[in-house]
Amino acid sequence: MKPYPRVAIVGAGFGGLQAAQSLARQKVEVTLIDRHNYHTFIPLLYQVATAQLAPEQVAVPIRTLLRKADNLKFLQATVKQIDFVAKEIKTDKNTLTYDHLVLATGSQSQFFNVPGAAQYTFKLKTLNQAITLRNHLLSCFEQANLTSDYALREQLLTISIVGGGATGVELAGSLVELITNSLHRDFPQLKPQEVKLLLMQSGDRLFREFPPSLGDYTAKKLRRLGVKVMLGSKVTGVGADSFKLDDGTEIASATVIWAVGVEGAMPKCFPCPKPRINRQVNVLPTLQLADHPEVFVIGDLAHVPTQEKSLAGVAPEALQQGVYVAKAIRKQVQGKRIKPFSYFNKGRLAIIGGYSGIGQIAGIKLQGFVPWFFWLAVHVVYFPDWRNRLMIFLTWLHNYLIGDRPVRLILSSPKSPSC
Amino acid sequence: MKPYPRVAIVGAGFGGLQAAQSLARQKVEVTLIDRHNYHTFIPLLYQVATAQLAPEQVAVPIRTLLRKADNLKFLQATVKQIDFVAKEIKTDKNTLTYDHLVLATGSQSQFFNVPGAAQYTFKLKTLNQAITLRNHLLSCFEQANLTSDYALREQLLTISIVGGGATGVELAGSLVELITNSLHRDFPQLKPQEVKLLLMQSGDRLFREFPPSLGDYTAKKLRRLGVKVMLGSKVTGVGADSFKLDDGTEIASATVIWAVGVEGAMPKCFPCPKPRINRQVNVLPTLQLADHPEVFVIGDLAHVPTQEKSLAGVAPEALQQGVYVAKAIRKQVQGKRIKPFSYFNKGRLAIIGGYSGIGQIAGIKLQGFVPWFFWLAVHVVYFPDWRNRLMIFLTWLHNYLIGDRPVRLILSSPKSPSC
Repeated sequence: MKPYPRVAIVGAGFGGLQAAQSLARQKVEVTLIDRHNYHTFIPLLYQVATAQLAPEQVAVPIRTLLRKADNLKFLQATVKQIDFVAKEIKTDKNTLTYDHLVLATGSQSQFFNVPGAAQYTFKLKTLNQAITLRNHLLSCFEQANLTSDYALREQLLTISIVGGGATGVELAGSLVELITNSLHRDFPQLKPQEVKLLLMQSGDRLFREFPPSLGDYTAKKLRRLGVKVMLGSKVTGVGADSFKLDDGTEIASATVIWAVGVEGAMPKCFPCPKPRINRQVNVLPTLQLADHPEVFVIGDLAHVPTQEKSLAGVAPEALQQGVYVAKAIRKQVQGKRIKPFSYFNKGRLAIIGGYSGIGQIAGIKLQGFVPWFFWLAVHVVYFPDWRNRLMIFLTWLHNYLIGDRPVRLILSSPKSPSC
Repeated sequence: MKPYPRVAIVGAGFGGLQAAQSLARQKVEVTLIDRHNYHTFIPLLYQVATAQLAPEQVAVPIRTLLRKADNLKFLQATVKQIDFVAKEIKTDKNTLTYDHLVLATGSQSQFFNVPGAAQYTFKLKTLNQAITLRNHLLSCFEQANLTSDYALREQLLTISIVGGGATGVELAGSLVELITNSLHRDFPQLKPQEVKLLLMQSGDRLFREFPPSLGDYTAKKLRRLGVKVMLGSKVTGVGADSFKLDDGTEIASATVIWAVGVEGAMPKCFPCPKPRINRQVNVLPTLQLADHPEVFVIGDLAHVPTQEKSLAGVAPEALQQGVYVAKAIRKQVQGKRIKPFSYFNKGRLAIIGGYSGIGQIAGIKLQGFVPWFFWLAVHVVYFPDWRNRLMIFLTWLHNYLIGDRPVRLILSSPKSPSC
């Protein structure tokens, strides 16, 4: 009997994981490769950073998700080199060959050469980064509570977010809730008004991917919650405890969060031709590489030429591309023609905080409580694991009904021993 | 109005936390000091190490537990020096003075000068240590799954536990469950029989604090579960991937867990006179220092002379001493006489695994399912926070009814970047 074709998938984010799951029990041998042994549900990372959810609640072991099908294997490894001609992948653990390859390594932060941005800002693309930010924020409050130095206290209590897209807005809203619900109970000496939340957006409105009226609504809502929304403010430099704006202002801030700028997470060792300016890979409308039709690129890493305007780097795109690529590989195995990928846009939702969100579904604009509630519901429904769904649901009940953030642990190793 | 007397408590384990909570709304100003911002429920740490519970489920922010009372303050700091004469505590953050002091820094691992033990073994006294052990165990399975080198595979799949007390037995039982329930589903290529679990005990029976018949029952039960119980085996040296026994045998083992030997966690900077051989502090029957009656020592750090036999370093002792010391301080403030501390032993339970436990309550020996169930029930009931109680309960239902360990995340930062 002829062995089944081998499919290698690099990256177990939304796209890669979906591709593997859509190939379950098909006549292919699938190896899903990731450097972590868990899938991260990235849209909820900001809730880990703000002590709303526990890290374990937004991550699922990949092996749990692949268990049901015998033809799906997992390899925890870091890819070192890919040879498209020999169809060979070298990892830090071993070398494997493939017949079909899916590249789904996602995106990473882009810093636009702003001095200090890469070094000093907090990012929110991985679970470790979310935990690091949580530890830092809670430590700043502990330190601010102790100091009588007014300037230091102000610096520790100034939290600055660079970028007025989904991540920036979500973070701002969730931080407001953390401060008004939990922190004033933990630190009666610190007044909630002492905490300054800055949201910097270089453009003239928030949420550029939504209609202007929804961006305006978001800014109004955040301002009412106490966030200083700074439109037309460009960050030109970041230091250890401060940052600079293009008008020359320097603002003391112990926490600068980088929530703007995404580029394809294409390691230099991937020999993809002509990367675009944001390090995405140019693919055909069938998500194949022009020179290597057995190589597919999906998710944030892919630049689909015909859909430049509509693809926004959100999870549903990666999920649909994962389903598509699984079908495409099955057709390729059968020698059939592959139809171009087309994205079905079900609409978009974004959460602000304080029981408010925005959305656009089938051309209808939504704002207020309804899209807020939908956002939470959709994210529970799309979570890939039943157990975490229940845990997240219970934790949100606790968050929103009791108004508390129970996971306020500073879990980094202590810097100094006990004495 | 005269200010209230100031009580400083160093350490927020069972003893220190209970002392603070028992002083809530009393006419004293309490500062509870700990280097972490959370209380760790140490009896469940082994379940974090074996991917049964999430770290956040066995830890509670200390500020959550102190919120209800205005006279309880928390200070996250590392104590650097204590001056019993000036009644002054220097921490890495500030300096504070006290009228009454409670030392409750607990215990730490003791290595009996076994070469390599401190450096190479995994410990289980802190939350970070439990997470480190979980990451390591899961990584060993990932590595063993990849290698075709038989000797390396055997080394990676040999887990050795030094010490046949509660921690050692609990770990062994919980590891058996992890391997038989979850790991063979994750790694169909690895057979459960390939995993070797060794439990070394230098004495001639397990659980020396229980009657011999219960120790024998435990050994029989563990052996039936597949654990190699090695009585009369003394570890004389530990290397990076192996250890030596006193009979000269050298055993290759990627994981050596140190579950024996406890000493008082008394930092060298504490000027306590004449420490005992295991670094505990000698106290009067009232838990006071002879020379400094305003200083109390409780929990694992205290050596109570009259009760040498009965005190075994378990949580109920620390809890009762916490309640006692709060009363004693109130009497001291009122100028009243303090009666000696006496421990009320409600009995003891220990969990083995595979639905079995042992116990001794009011002289009655228990073994099998009943003490197993009691152990779990008691630990849920004694957990200091409602939310975690519910989360632990739900996770145990999942563990024991569905037979799975959902929290199998390797959450350490990856050693190398993606390329």
